[in-house]
Amino acid sequence: LKRKRVKNSECPVARALDVIGDWWTLLIVRDAFDGVRRFGDFQRSLNISKGILASRLKGLKEAGIVEHAPSTSGAHDEYTLTPKGRDLFLVIVSLRQWGEAHCFASGESHSVLVERATGRRVLTLRLPGRRSAELDDAKTTVRKAKST
Amino acid sequence: LKRKRVKNSECPVARALDVIGDWWTLLIVRDAFDGVRRFGDFQRSLNISKGILASRLKGLKEAGIVEHAPSTSGAHDEYTLTPKGRDLFLVIVSLRQWGEAHCFASGESHSVLVERATGRRVLTLRLPGRRSAELDDAKTTVRKAKST
Repeated sequence: LKRKRVKNSECPVARALDVIGDWWTLLIVRDAFDGVRRFGDFQRSLNISKGILASRLKGLKEAGIVEHAPSTSGAHDEYTLTPKGRDLFLVIVSLRQWGEAHCFASGESHSVLVERATGRRVLTLRLPGRRSAELDDAKTTVRKAKST
Repeated sequence: LKRKRVKNSECPVARALDVIGDWWTLLIVRDAFDGVRRFGDFQRSLNISKGILASRLKGLKEAGIVEHAPSTSGAHDEYTLTPKGRDLFLVIVSLRQWGEAHCFASGESHSVLVERATGRRVLTLRLPGRRSAELDDAKTTVRKAKST
């Protein structure tokens, strides 16, 4: 099942998904945020085949989202997020908050994202508006790119 | 290539991706936010086969993200987002803002999300902290679910 590439799309959502719109890819990024660094640790965490993991890490390196270097001790290689990769933080948080709200039965427990400074659960993401405290889909619209 | 289901994961990110972690699925949701309602219009917008579109819409209905009903005129069926689907707004916005920042060459134009009230581009998403204006990955950590 080959997915269509949209390299020339004018839509940033489509371009972003072209890079990271793969289930494994975003779980690898999630693990990297959680401190996973080594190939074998990603493999154990995700219960994923070596081949799929290697191909997804290769894609993430080519996209400039992870970088790959020997650990400070030199004993093994480590994968870490680049600044571009760390900028995916709010993508992961938005998925988490939607998942928390909609993917668990009441009473079912899940992991939580907490502030290190307070130990308390993070607040919800906000899209502040200039005339209203919060924007939602009804208060926004997409404007096409200006043709140049 | 069958992807692993993680229905029982304690991680909300994994559960969210289990539902929407598919490239086409999120593009369908994006189109629905942009006002696309009819099967043929999704098909034209996405340049996708009828079979794939039908299977993804079926999955979105089963997940409670879209609903499917005759239009008010009764002339055709329409797919619209449920409240659970509309809650994906910030997921789409986070992907858009990452895509805007990282997936376009300088000078290359892209569509923009604007506030209806002002016509101006939306501000960036924020994750407000209790002791700092903004949280990032370094200021947060994931705490495992309490076992019950």
